[in-house]
Amino acid sequence: MIAKKLIKDLFFRQKKAQKAIRKTGAEGMLLTTDVNIYYMTGLVFNGYYYLPVDDDPLLFVKRPGGLAGERLFSIRKPEQIPDIFAANGWELPENALLEMDEISYNEYMRLQNIFHFKKTDNATTFMRRIRTVKTPWEIEQLRTSADRHAATYARIPDCYRPGMTDLRFQAEIEHRMRLNGSIGVFRAFGPNMNIFMGSVLAGENAATPSPHDFALGGGGQTAFCPIGANGTVLKEGMTVMVDMAGNFTDYLTDMTRVYSIGMLPEAAYCAHCISQEIQDAVEVMAKPGVACADLYNRAYAIVKKAGLADCFMGMRQQAKFVGHGIGLEINEPPVFTPRSGEILEENMTFALEPKFVIPQVGAVGIENSFLVTCTGIEKLTTFREDIIPLD
Amino acid sequence: MIAKKLIKDLFFRQKKAQKAIRKTGAEGMLLTTDVNIYYMTGLVFNGYYYLPVDDDPLLFVKRPGGLAGERLFSIRKPEQIPDIFAANGWELPENALLEMDEISYNEYMRLQNIFHFKKTDNATTFMRRIRTVKTPWEIEQLRTSADRHAATYARIPDCYRPGMTDLRFQAEIEHRMRLNGSIGVFRAFGPNMNIFMGSVLAGENAATPSPHDFALGGGGQTAFCPIGANGTVLKEGMTVMVDMAGNFTDYLTDMTRVYSIGMLPEAAYCAHCISQEIQDAVEVMAKPGVACADLYNRAYAIVKKAGLADCFMGMRQQAKFVGHGIGLEINEPPVFTPRSGEILEENMTFALEPKFVIPQVGAVGIENSFLVTCTGIEKLTTFREDIIPLD
Repeated sequence: MIAKKLIKDLFFRQKKAQKAIRKTGAEGMLLTTDVNIYYMTGLVFNGYYYLPVDDDPLLFVKRPGGLAGERLFSIRKPEQIPDIFAANGWELPENALLEMDEISYNEYMRLQNIFHFKKTDNATTFMRRIRTVKTPWEIEQLRTSADRHAATYARIPDCYRPGMTDLRFQAEIEHRMRLNGSIGVFRAFGPNMNIFMGSVLAGENAATPSPHDFALGGGGQTAFCPIGANGTVLKEGMTVMVDMAGNFTDYLTDMTRVYSIGMLPEAAYCAHCISQEIQDAVEVMAKPGVACADLYNRAYAIVKKAGLADCFMGMRQQAKFVGHGIGLEINEPPVFTPRSGEILEENMTFALEPKFVIPQVGAVGIENSFLVTCTGIEKLTTFREDIIPLD
Repeated sequence: MIAKKLIKDLFFRQKKAQKAIRKTGAEGMLLTTDVNIYYMTGLVFNGYYYLPVDDDPLLFVKRPGGLAGERLFSIRKPEQIPDIFAANGWELPENALLEMDEISYNEYMRLQNIFHFKKTDNATTFMRRIRTVKTPWEIEQLRTSADRHAATYARIPDCYRPGMTDLRFQAEIEHRMRLNGSIGVFRAFGPNMNIFMGSVLAGENAATPSPHDFALGGGGQTAFCPIGANGTVLKEGMTVMVDMAGNFTDYLTDMTRVYSIGMLPEAAYCAHCISQEIQDAVEVMAKPGVACADLYNRAYAIVKKAGLADCFMGMRQQAKFVGHGIGLEINEPPVFTPRSGEILEENMTFALEPKFVIPQVGAVGIENSFLVTCTGIEKLTTFREDIIPLD
C-alpha cells in the first residue's frame, strides 16, 4: 500500500522528530490530530500515535477496525493504553509532548488522568516547526499539486460568461479543479479558518473585512460564511482575484491570479506591477539564512515608496503578513510579518502574496508557491503573471 | 442587515439559554466557537461572546474590525476583557460555562489566567443540548435547505455517463449543488470528521472501513482523506449511494438516495425495502416523548427479523447508530443508538439513515431529514425513495 520511497521518508521524519524530542527533555510525544498522525505515519486513523524518544512508535487505533501490526493496538478508548504499556513491560512517560493548541481542554484532562504526566510540553508548535522543512517525498507532492494548480488556472477564462456572478464563476472553477483531481478539502490551522476551497473576490467585495485571518476578506455567501464571493455580478472595469487552494495532493499549494473584465483604470495595472516588483525583490533576496521579517520589510518598503500603504493587503482591514508557509495546511510557519523571528531554511515551502485593493476596481496582485533551495528560491506555480483579460 | 424575524428568534434563544444557565448555577457563559457564536448572534466573528445569566450579552470582537454597538467591544486579545469589565463596573464571573470539548487546552488555560474562574462547566454539551430544539427561524432554514437538497437529487441521473468513475460522478453532483446555491462547507462536530461535501459510494467501496464516525466508510481519494469515493469505475450491477450534505442554507439537511446501473441482484432490492420498512416503522412510532433508544431498537428488530444484521450500517465495520440530529452541524444530538438516553422533543430535527451493504453490489438504503411535530414527525426531504436507475 505505502510506496518504498514514502517508507524511507517516514523513517527520516521519525528520526528527525526523535532528535528534536530529545532536546526538549521529554520521554516521548503523544499525537492525536489527523494532520500530525498523517505526517508521522502516512495514514489517517482515529486514535493515538506515541513516539518514544528512543524507540519505534506505538499506534493505538480506535477506527478503522481491522488494522494490524507489531506495535499497533486496537483500542476502544484511551483508558486501555496503560494496561497495554504494562503488559509489554513499558513504563508510562512522565514528561511528554501533547498537542496543547489543538486537543480540547477535556481531551487533555482525560489524557492527564490516564497518564498522570508530571510535565507536558506543546506538541502543536513543536510539530509545526518540524513540518516547516519538507522532505523529498513532500516536495514531490507539492510539485505535483503546483503543476495541476497552474494547469487549472490556465483554463479559468473558459469559466467566464458575461453577466455571471462571482459565485457562479467560482462554481465553474471548482468544477474544473475537481475534474483535474482536486481533493476539495481545504485544510487550515486554527479555529476560525473556514472557507470553501478558496476565494474569488470581484470588485469592491475585495475590501470587505472578514473575521478570518486570510490575506483578504470578502462578504461571503451567508452570515455563517462571511468570507469570499458574495454574489457580485461581474462587470466591466472590475478585477476578479482567484485564490483557490491547490489541494491536488495531500499537500496544498497556494496561488493567486487576477482576471479583468474590460479595461481597468491605470491605478490597477500600476499596483499590480508593484506586486510583481515585490516578488522580484523577494526572489533576489530569499535564501537559507534570510530572516522572514526582512522579507516583509523589504516588501513594505517597496509598497511605501509606491505610495500604496493604505491599500496593501486590504483597505478597511489590512493583513499584517505578505507570505506564509504551506504544506499539509495552507497556513504553516514561517510567516512573513514585520516582527517574525523565523529564518528561511533549505526545503521550506512558502507562498508569497503581495496584494492591493483598488477602490471601485477590486483586488490586484499575485501569489505563488516557492521552495527554498540551497542557494535561493524556486517558483513552483509557474504561469503568466499579468492581469488576464476575461473577455 | 439582520431581519426582524431573526432578531426575535435570537432574543428567544438568549432567554432560553439564560434559563438553562440559571439551572447550572453559573453566572454566565463565555463562547468562542463560530457555531455557538453564530447561534447566539446570527453573526460570525473572531472573539468572545459572554452571556450573563441575567443581563444582555457582551461581544468582544477581535475581527472583523469596524463593528460597533452598545455592548460590543473591539479587542486585540482576551487579556483586555477584565479592564473592560472594571471600566463598566461589572464583576468578572467566578463560575462560568466554557466550551471545554472544543477550545484547546491552551486556550482554556489562557482564559483561566484571565478570569481566575473558581468553577467552570462544559458549554459544549450545554449548547449542543440547547440547539437540539429548533426555533421557527431555524426550521425555516432547514425547510429551504431540504427543498433545494431534494431538487438537486432529482437532477442526479443527468450527471451520469457510462464508464465514468465515482469521483467524476460526484464532481458533477457537486457542481449542480453549487449552481443550486449550496454553500459547500461541510460542518461536523468533533475532530475526526473531515469529508468534502458528502459521500458517493459505488459498489464494494461501500464496505471499506474508515477512521471517521460516519454511517458508512469508503476508501477515499488519498491517504489523508480515507472516506467516500475512491475512483471506482461505475459498472453494471452496482449501486451508487449518494449522501451529500444539504448545505443550501447555514443549516444542514441530510439525505441519501441509491442509484443503480443495470439490474441488481434481488438481495439488493430486498434490503432496500427493509430500509423503507424501518423508516415506515419510525414514522409511525416517533413523536415527542419517545426514547431514541427505542427507535434504534425497533429498527434493529426489523433488521434481525430480515436476517440482515451482518450487513446493517456496514459490514467489516458497522456504525452503531441509525439516526442523528441535524442543524448547524451535520451530527448533532439526539443520536439513535441502542443505549441513547435522549428523548424526542417537539421541533427537534434529525436524519434517519437505515443502510445496508450488499456484497459485490454496494450500499442500499435511504436517508431523510425529519422535523418532530407536536404529534409525530414530518419528512423534510421529500423525493422518490426507490432505487433509481441511472441508465
